[in-house]
Amino acid sequence: MEQPQQPGSSEGSLALSRRAQLAAGQPIGRLMAEALKYPDLVSLAAGFVDNATLPCDATVRCLRQLSSDSSLLRKALQYDTSAGSEAFRSTLMDWSYADWPDARPDPQDVILTAGSNQFLHLLAEALIDPGDIVIAAAPTYFVFLGTLRGVDARIVGVHADEDGMCMEALEEQLQRIESSGDAARVKAIYTVTEFDNPAGSTLSLQRRQRLLEIVSRWRRKHGPLLILSDNAYRLLRYQGESLPPLTAIDPASRDFVVELGTFSKSFSPGIRVGWGVVPAPLVSHLLEMKSNMDFGSPHFSQVLMNEVLTTGELDKHLPVIQAGYQAKLDATLGALDRELGNVEGVSWRTPSGGLYVWLTLPSHVDTSEQGALWKCSTERGVLYVPGHYCFPGEGQPVGRNTIRLSFGVQPAAGIDEGIQRLASAIDEVTAMPI
Amino acid sequence: MEQPQQPGSSEGSLALSRRAQLAAGQPIGRLMAEALKYPDLVSLAAGFVDNATLPCDATVRCLRQLSSDSSLLRKALQYDTSAGSEAFRSTLMDWSYADWPDARPDPQDVILTAGSNQFLHLLAEALIDPGDIVIAAAPTYFVFLGTLRGVDARIVGVHADEDGMCMEALEEQLQRIESSGDAARVKAIYTVTEFDNPAGSTLSLQRRQRLLEIVSRWRRKHGPLLILSDNAYRLLRYQGESLPPLTAIDPASRDFVVELGTFSKSFSPGIRVGWGVVPAPLVSHLLEMKSNMDFGSPHFSQVLMNEVLTTGELDKHLPVIQAGYQAKLDATLGALDRELGNVEGVSWRTPSGGLYVWLTLPSHVDTSEQGALWKCSTERGVLYVPGHYCFPGEGQPVGRNTIRLSFGVQPAAGIDEGIQRLASAIDEVTAMPI
Repeated sequence: MEQPQQPGSSEGSLALSRRAQLAAGQPIGRLMAEALKYPDLVSLAAGFVDNATLPCDATVRCLRQLSSDSSLLRKALQYDTSAGSEAFRSTLMDWSYADWPDARPDPQDVILTAGSNQFLHLLAEALIDPGDIVIAAAPTYFVFLGTLRGVDARIVGVHADEDGMCMEALEEQLQRIESSGDAARVKAIYTVTEFDNPAGSTLSLQRRQRLLEIVSRWRRKHGPLLILSDNAYRLLRYQGESLPPLTAIDPASRDFVVELGTFSKSFSPGIRVGWGVVPAPLVSHLLEMKSNMDFGSPHFSQVLMNEVLTTGELDKHLPVIQAGYQAKLDATLGALDRELGNVEGVSWRTPSGGLYVWLTLPSHVDTSEQGALWKCSTERGVLYVPGHYCFPGEGQPVGRNTIRLSFGVQPAAGIDEGIQRLASAIDEVTAMPI
Repeated sequence: MEQPQQPGSSEGSLALSRRAQLAAGQPIGRLMAEALKYPDLVSLAAGFVDNATLPCDATVRCLRQLSSDSSLLRKALQYDTSAGSEAFRSTLMDWSYADWPDARPDPQDVILTAGSNQFLHLLAEALIDPGDIVIAAAPTYFVFLGTLRGVDARIVGVHADEDGMCMEALEEQLQRIESSGDAARVKAIYTVTEFDNPAGSTLSLQRRQRLLEIVSRWRRKHGPLLILSDNAYRLLRYQGESLPPLTAIDPASRDFVVELGTFSKSFSPGIRVGWGVVPAPLVSHLLEMKSNMDFGSPHFSQVLMNEVLTTGELDKHLPVIQAGYQAKLDATLGALDRELGNVEGVSWRTPSGGLYVWLTLPSHVDTSEQGALWKCSTERGVLYVPGHYCFPGEGQPVGRNTIRLSFGVQPAAGIDEGIQRLASAIDEVTAMPI
């Protein structure tokens, strides 16, 4: 007798899980497929890092060093623990918290992953049951939105400006959630603390302090709530002084702050070493899950990054990439000024670091793939990330007139050309009858 | 007003997901903690590979080559796609299916992961909703049992012997499931096809053919069902001829067979490159999920393994480790013969490859951490994996009188010493009044 198809199955020949169905339709894949249709495209979309400043020489030196130490090399070729190289976790904490030695975490509270995105996924798995709430800036990192939707989270957006998430707006959202009886469902507040993806904004010191207070208060009243502080772009500062990480502001926040980092942007995404520092009681739970996933990320990469840090290669490399990206950022801002400075309703933010500039167009311009601008832009040969992907949906209106521009990959000439093309497309679209 | 704790939360200070709770209590962590209590322990438990035969020189040569090709090195340091290096996927399929060129898969159907365990996790996420059924040999790979329990799968065990899963027993289980109305819940049959973990058995050619027939028939009647053929130990054959992979036996099975491989056992777990070849319609779904998890495993490792394959280093390395493990297997079997050959009720299997020997003790001996043997063994300084972890629970009785011995790590003298200690512990325990 023919049995019915599994309920929820999206395709007859497969029987996919609900999670597989939730993961369907990631924008990146579609954007890339779209991009391939147009040769000579200038991509201001991809968040890749600059090919020209990848640390080839530094890597060669570290590989040579590693190759000459046969006992270390042998270790690097073997399995390590699920948490990853203990030596590297220790080096990493010394290096990362050098300016805030009192806040240096215990390396036992650090878990290494293949990039910080893998850590975000681990957190989503460990914290979220269907319907649980994560609060994030609107706009925020759209890949993590996909990860959260993949575990059926409810994502609440909070208004944000140049200084990151607005704390009054956060309190309003929390109050709204509390009033609706869902306080116990709030699991985490996610913030890309420095030069965020996509808006380039940095959470100000004052807001960091407020955030810690708000969460402490919430925890006293409602119990568990974590701050996920994603420091992926921390090392890409081109101007001004570093701000202290959350746990350096208030050591007690170690109980509820997860700090994530990565060397994908600051050294090499191909080696791909990221990490999370987590509250001590969370460590064993995350490690048990990670044991089920991959029992530890590639050890060789960790040993290599340990060489990169201990030999001082990273310290030498950072000024090089910072100068390189600063020039690209200047080129981006210069071209925007020239091409769009006098166009009514067009504005953008000026970040002090990172890889992104956030552009807002007149409110009637739809930047999505369904809008006229997308068609005009791709035909003219420029690709961007439509900003609407970066909005959680709930809590804040979706900015369909926004754009994320990435300046990491293109040389200055490509940035100029891309923004010229974009401006010309905007010109055409804004001239259309509304 | 104080809100109640999240239902299901296991700890007051945390609010973990159901999945985090399902992942709790992995045996590996406990076994290791237990082991640390006893210095001078001979571990026949860990599935690590032999330190002495790790390919240090081959790796140095490949790193040197990679370092000298700056354009390749630059590429290796950059992001790649979620599926991983296309060049390597192509090399890998040429190399893996060299003996079965007609069965060579399209590299587009290959996804690279950081070890094959990561691929198993991806499959579990993509296929399993709570209560969905996976069928596996009893005993089977206990880490995957943990992964499956972590997604709330129902795991049905099938009787297995020296030739792997018994096909009559498989048919019986399928019939039982069908009769109970759960046919649509059966998502996959998992088999460690060669020298399996833990039992060392290899699915015979005849059974491979039967398995393909059984699944084809089931699919015609009930729809989707996959075979997950885990070839993790395939390259560790010490005797006899290679058997064809499932898809080489019947090309049509490409529609429903997933073939997994890894270089963790045959080259280096620290570099950690694994892969899965999947039915074409599954590719995009798995890639969307992988994009949410880590958007691709470390590219550097993939480029390095591409060097290892294209330079012939792997072909040169395999005979070295095969000879090394063969000697360790001989030492294991020799010591078992000497120490336990005349003990009534004690038997073991003789594998032709892999890293494990499966030991069965008299039925009244409980090998678990709760039994007398565990205490006697650890006190005498030998560690093993209690076999009960390797049983799914449903479908087949749990063999609490079984042991997995790993011979990959210890030198021959350690193997001798460990098995002597184990034999002495068995002697003591079997002499106890029942």
